[in-house]
Amino acid sequence: MVTGRGIGVGLIGTGYMGKCHALAWNAVAPTFGDVARPRLVHLAEASGDLAARKAAELGFEKASGDWRRLVEDPEVDIVSVTTPNAFHAEMAIAALEAGKHVWCEKPMATSLADAEAMLAAAERAGTVTALGYNYIQNPATRHMKALIEAGAIGEVNHVRFEMDEDFMADGTAPFGWKSQKESGYGALDDFGVHPLSLLHVLVGPLTEVIADCAMPYATRPATGGRAVETHDIANILIHAGRVSGSILLNRSAWGRKGRIAVQVFGSEGTLAYDQERMNEIQIYEARGPLAGQGFRTILTGTVHPPYDKFIPAPGHGLGFNDLKVIEAHEILKKIAGEDAHLIDFAAGIAIERAVHAMARSFAERAWVRV
Amino acid sequence: MVTGRGIGVGLIGTGYMGKCHALAWNAVAPTFGDVARPRLVHLAEASGDLAARKAAELGFEKASGDWRRLVEDPEVDIVSVTTPNAFHAEMAIAALEAGKHVWCEKPMATSLADAEAMLAAAERAGTVTALGYNYIQNPATRHMKALIEAGAIGEVNHVRFEMDEDFMADGTAPFGWKSQKESGYGALDDFGVHPLSLLHVLVGPLTEVIADCAMPYATRPATGGRAVETHDIANILIHAGRVSGSILLNRSAWGRKGRIAVQVFGSEGTLAYDQERMNEIQIYEARGPLAGQGFRTILTGTVHPPYDKFIPAPGHGLGFNDLKVIEAHEILKKIAGEDAHLIDFAAGIAIERAVHAMARSFAERAWVRV
Amino acid sequence: MVTGRGIGVGLIGTGYMGKCHALAWNAVAPTFGDVARPRLVHLAEASGDLAARKAAELGFEKASGDWRRLVEDPEVDIVSVTTPNAFHAEMAIAALEAGKHVWCEKPMATSLADAEAMLAAAERAGTVTALGYNYIQNPATRHMKALIEAGAIGEVNHVRFEMDEDFMADGTAPFGWKSQKESGYGALDDFGVHPLSLLHVLVGPLTEVIADCAMPYATRPATGGRAVETHDIANILIHAGRVSGSILLNRSAWGRKGRIAVQVFGSEGTLAYDQERMNEIQIYEARGPLAGQGFRTILTGTVHPPYDKFIPAPGHGLGFNDLKVIEAHEILKKIAGEDAHLIDFAAGIAIERAVHAMARSFAERAWVRV
Amino acid sequence: MVTGRGIGVGLIGTGYMGKCHALAWNAVAPTFGDVARPRLVHLAEASGDLAARKAAELGFEKASGDWRRLVEDPEVDIVSVTTPNAFHAEMAIAALEAGKHVWCEKPMATSLADAEAMLAAAERAGTVTALGYNYIQNPATRHMKALIEAGAIGEVNHVRFEMDEDFMADGTAPFGWKSQKESGYGALDDFGVHPLSLLHVLVGPLTEVIADCAMPYATRPATGGRAVETHDIANILIHAGRVSGSILLNRSAWGRKGRIAVQVFGSEGTLAYDQERMNEIQIYEARGPLAGQGFRTILTGTVHPPYDKFIPAPGHGLGFNDLKVIEAHEILKKIAGEDAHLIDFAAGIAIERAVHAMARSFAERAWVRV
Repeated sequence: MVTGRGIGVGLIGTGYMGKCHALAWNAVAPTFGDVARPRLVHLAEASGDLAARKAAELGFEKASGDWRRLVEDPEVDIVSVTTPNAFHAEMAIAALEAGKHVWCEKPMATSLADAEAMLAAAERAGTVTALGYNYIQNPATRHMKALIEAGAIGEVNHVRFEMDEDFMADGTAPFGWKSQKESGYGALDDFGVHPLSLLHVLVGPLTEVIADCAMPYATRPATGGRAVETHDIANILIHAGRVSGSILLNRSAWGRKGRIAVQVFGSEGTLAYDQERMNEIQIYEARGPLAGQGFRTILTGTVHPPYDKFIPAPGHGLGFNDLKVIEAHEILKKIAGEDAHLIDFAAGIAIERAVHAMARSFAERAWVRV
Repeated sequence: MVTGRGIGVGLIGTGYMGKCHALAWNAVAPTFGDVARPRLVHLAEASGDLAARKAAELGFEKASGDWRRLVEDPEVDIVSVTTPNAFHAEMAIAALEAGKHVWCEKPMATSLADAEAMLAAAERAGTVTALGYNYIQNPATRHMKALIEAGAIGEVNHVRFEMDEDFMADGTAPFGWKSQKESGYGALDDFGVHPLSLLHVLVGPLTEVIADCAMPYATRPATGGRAVETHDIANILIHAGRVSGSILLNRSAWGRKGRIAVQVFGSEGTLAYDQERMNEIQIYEARGPLAGQGFRTILTGTVHPPYDKFIPAPGHGLGFNDLKVIEAHEILKKIAGEDAHLIDFAAGIAIERAVHAMARSFAERAWVRV
Repeated sequence: MVTGRGIGVGLIGTGYMGKCHALAWNAVAPTFGDVARPRLVHLAEASGDLAARKAAELGFEKASGDWRRLVEDPEVDIVSVTTPNAFHAEMAIAALEAGKHVWCEKPMATSLADAEAMLAAAERAGTVTALGYNYIQNPATRHMKALIEAGAIGEVNHVRFEMDEDFMADGTAPFGWKSQKESGYGALDDFGVHPLSLLHVLVGPLTEVIADCAMPYATRPATGGRAVETHDIANILIHAGRVSGSILLNRSAWGRKGRIAVQVFGSEGTLAYDQERMNEIQIYEARGPLAGQGFRTILTGTVHPPYDKFIPAPGHGLGFNDLKVIEAHEILKKIAGEDAHLIDFAAGIAIERAVHAMARSFAERAWVRV
Repeated sequence: MVTGRGIGVGLIGTGYMGKCHALAWNAVAPTFGDVARPRLVHLAEASGDLAARKAAELGFEKASGDWRRLVEDPEVDIVSVTTPNAFHAEMAIAALEAGKHVWCEKPMATSLADAEAMLAAAERAGTVTALGYNYIQNPATRHMKALIEAGAIGEVNHVRFEMDEDFMADGTAPFGWKSQKESGYGALDDFGVHPLSLLHVLVGPLTEVIADCAMPYATRPATGGRAVETHDIANILIHAGRVSGSILLNRSAWGRKGRIAVQVFGSEGTLAYDQERMNEIQIYEARGPLAGQGFRTILTGTVHPPYDKFIPAPGHGLGFNDLKVIEAHEILKKIAGEDAHLIDFAAGIAIERAVHAMARSFAERAWVRV
């Protein structure tokens, strides 16, 4: 039986991922049944009023309009940082310096220097860090990893990643902050880090890249029209040691809503996956009579951990939010000193370096080593 | 801002659906943000030890080895009944007689008489009742209903429902209680009620049926072999007023894990859905140039309520457990006096009557009016 | 090397299937390379003018406005009968009595008596007969048959067949001959015979049926509106010995263009197929680790005979017309005294009997033995 | 009514595409019904014996072991060149110099110089030339082109092409000629020309490329192992004017049998296609209520010309070989002076230049203008 005091949680930010973190902290104990229920201690938002309202909605005890008060709260053991990317570094570093564990949304920061500073702070603090790469928590992608490691498709020699959504596809929508330089490169860092997290887990780190970026709309509506400063499309040819491949990113891809299409080619088979059908993977194994070979669609189920913690019947389907519950559980395991399936700041810096190498490659129109 | 004391929850049973109820009661407030957080007051299980352990895991305050103590607990406002079907009637009636709201898993009972008694008790009590027909809560199936009501496919004239899983497909597995007469008819009541709930919501009540049931395995392994007493397969031809159709059920369908395939044909189009891809519906609209017509796959998103309460981006996917959170929210709305999308005991009795009419039809090898 | 004089072909009818036969006779020799090129001797149509024009288009030597002249032509060895169903009996019997082989489109006739007379004539003639059940010629369905026979899915215990098109789906289209009683029952004989041919080949003959038929539109546009006399929808529950199942037919199914969906359930796996994706089958085999099980999509290729006679690379796709080429080749094999995969009049009569049993079952609202 | 003498056909080569040409010449007249039946005059193969056997099989009148005799045959009006790529130039030029029309399989040649010489010969001859880019003949891809031209997806801004098969995927298979330098670059020219033909038709010519090639297996089995000299994998980032995109090629992709996956992104929608399901296209149109938007799967049918020439019912499916029949018909139209949908030598040279630019880009590890 699980006993003892649950970990004290502080949450900064209550947007898209902020609510997702809150739901995960709320669900992790009853879902897994092997951890003490986290205490939702402190929530910070841009104003005290908003913080108070969100704390009531999401079940946090205290609310602050100043995130620094949350970081200083002795009841807070771990800080969820879910604010816009430009704020990650300052908040994460402050939390680390206060001796907290940190669960920070991806990407780490908007500059490589900031990300490196975050890693340095983490190393000084010695606490647990984790980045919000939720797609690696999917029992489906975990099973892909297990299959690769078990040699199901032989030696991996080639990969393809596509990530597409359509939130920037409407060229008649007003110029917004995602088209401003300050938000980053565009698809490359806003998007590219997710496929990179899967690449990291399934194949390993990148060694060399060449990138091309494109603007589907050179200007977007504003008074007089306004020149777009970010690239909604990015295509990258990659090498990861002996493995070649590509990463194709498009956040102006009409009709794609949450597509992360993965193809992994090996000497004895092929694996495929699409996040829009997140409860399925496909595998082709070049074994047995040729007349019987084909891509097999595996629906995740109780034999693909930790699906069984959510539903005791196969094929019933996890959702996007469930991935964050698994992530929270991995963090609690790591804090408890167990092995965990996570991308921490030390591992995550490789993803940041890759992104910035891609940006440089595009600027220089040349191959760049990561 | 949501204030006030949350509803007091009692949970009887902690198996498949028991845990699912617990997770839903736990998640409904932070997910929707417009209801007070339910208090997880009391949990009952077959023994005090098990109850205590599960209460700790799932976050309930009190634990009992005797469900009657839970029903009598004045702090309990609503009772979740998630025990095996044979126990539903006694527990639900006791809870209703104690003035509680009741959320009971499907089907209502193993006999029509019991179900009718449950309905009578509900009418006497005047409290809120709800049956666990979670698939009608899916934003995807709700959108199908909205499309039908908006005339998107014209007048419905034909329907097909299939429900298939494979938990009884292994004929070499030992004889178990699901093959015993006492568990019910087999696929018909164990399974059939889910398609019937969708039929009820999308089209309306059945008027006439003819059923055929089958045993893929006449005996199953036991000492000396044991004759199977239930039918793992059931096929029913149906009339629902002017709408004709079929319901095909197979719990020995190798490879099907959570299939509920729905096809609704109308005078101007067709709708299709499969629960194994629960975040998609398909629609064919016989409009516009023929060269452009085809089945359109709609990924559910923020424009399909209440998807937006879970995730602010489309196409990211809800999971099976999320449907129960929506169901819990509907119950809270109904308790608050609002309109709710639920199948209560009064509506649910039609489903029970349909199931028993099907069983009679099979026995008599004849069409039976419902 | 193939030498010798090719078979002399007579073609009656040049509509949908008439052209399809002509293309098949034209393609069979170069495709298979092991038969002498059939001589396209004689074509008959409703008028001499039409016959002459079609003979020029399709490459026949002679043309007649009177089909009896074709049947009497000594240069004709085999007669393709592709006229409306009501004419099949008279033409086929005349051809058989003239000592010709007969390739007749499905169904055999519009009455069971006519079909029985055709069979009797065939038995008297002793020549080769074949019915145009082209879907059984698909390398995909042939591979299903081979898999079933090899025990890939264990013992078959249940089947589902659906056949759907939408050529009768438009209720605003004028009343036409397919809505007239004289055309037959409706979906049952117009449609049902195709699934029945697959059932025949994959599972075996039916033993018992109960059918329900429906009219999506009671009337169709004509002066004053005209009552529909045929049923565009038919659903049948079936027994084929110990195998239970269903056949669902809908020729008013908006969006379905050539759907023949087959599901075959066995004690160790499941097979699935849809004619709209005619180059694929799906198989689930309940073998090996559960975590790796799933439906495997097999694309037909050179290892699925006789695909290789058309294309030397797998997965490139046969088309609907190619099936008729295979059928023609089977007929030539049978004429040459070899084993052939065909439904002749003797086998086809079982399909006719099944259809008429279904019609009687619907009329009597009762189970009927076939 | 079609009258007159049909065109005289000479066929050099009877392998994969040779047979495909023969079948197309044989089928084009009865399929389309508006052209005189081509006369299969002369067939040439590597030896007289083989030529004689193949002529009998495929229905040609004369057979030669020396292709030059075929080229000189005054009865031959058009020469189908279907030999290995290295022979194309010599044969095509000889045929053109003899005043014949030439239908040559893709790619034009193994060197750009040869391709340019072929174009020069064609310009001198003034006869009709055509390259065997059959995928552009598919009613599905033609409909994509029509949709793009009609503005269905707005202004195209991005494209993705993938082409994958697995005939080189087995690293344990013996070293063969496709791994020899003399066969060309590998995936780039063996494969890349097909996506390039679609790109050419759907979007227009390339302007700039950067390519990366890879060897999944550095050596293949031979005595002592033998170093592979060609690249089975090629990835190219592309610009076609303002349109950016990628072409990904893999002939060692286990499980892919005939995959040509196309995605075309526009300012108002997206088109997608996969040759393995060659009778379908998908379109997403960003129009109407968001709740109803989705990818629509259009099955090709009689409203997508020239599907109707093959089958008078929609959704029944064309096959790979049918595409060549359409191609043959386009050639006959062009010879008759009509507009035709073809890639002739003048258009095809752009594809050759693109391929060689890609190869240079890979060698130089730099962007190259086409």
